[in-house]
Amino acid sequence: MRRFGQIIKVRQEHFETYKAYHAKVWPEILEMIKKCNISNYSIYHKDGFLFAYMEYSGNDFAADMARMAADPKTQEWWAAMEPMQKPLETRKKGEWWANMEEVFHLD
Amino acid sequence: MRRFGQIIKVRQEHFETYKAYHAKVWPEILEMIKKCNISNYSIYHKDGFLFAYMEYSGNDFAADMARMAADPKTQEWWAAMEPMQKPLETRKKGEWWANMEEVFHLD
Repeated sequence: MRRFGQIIKVRQEHFETYKAYHAKVWPEILEMIKKCNISNYSIYHKDGFLFAYMEYSGNDFAADMARMAADPKTQEWWAAMEPMQKPLETRKKGEWWANMEEVFHLD
Repeated sequence: MRRFGQIIKVRQEHFETYKAYHAKVWPEILEMIKKCNISNYSIYHKDGFLFAYMEYSGNDFAADMARMAADPKTQEWWAAMEPMQKPLETRKKGEWWANMEEVFHLD
């Protein structure tokens, strides 16, 4: 199992809308996340920062992420989310949410 | 089970030391965390921000946190960590790490 921590900003004027979307995520999005072997997925907010934690239990992360990115409903969801988000300028090439470095883990 | 997301800053000049401590956490600290019913505990870093994710499986969170805070070795650990951290000014009264708001969760 692989764990991921990711960070992005949310534009404060859109935060309530962002929350409302996430309180009622489209079923197809949740289904696709599960199909792509992501579980125990949480998003937290504080002071305009969003933090995501998730666990990956598949065997080919790149392939699963490519499958997710190719899904039309997921693309529609991302198109709605992205204008509300403000990615970190220090994110790596190809990232939207910036991957964080794991500093500590205790099972 | 309760999940927690928490955020704090790390003073950049101390980050390498902070990482080194967390690569070799004292066994008594890990033991106390487990005794206090915390598991699946991760800390991530990006751009001077630390994010912690953890799961609590006990029945009395306040009592478990009080037990942890009363432990001399834990107090010693915290005394070493706190000068390296810079808490958010917007944290709630009584917080060091600021609790974040859960915006989304998928099991």
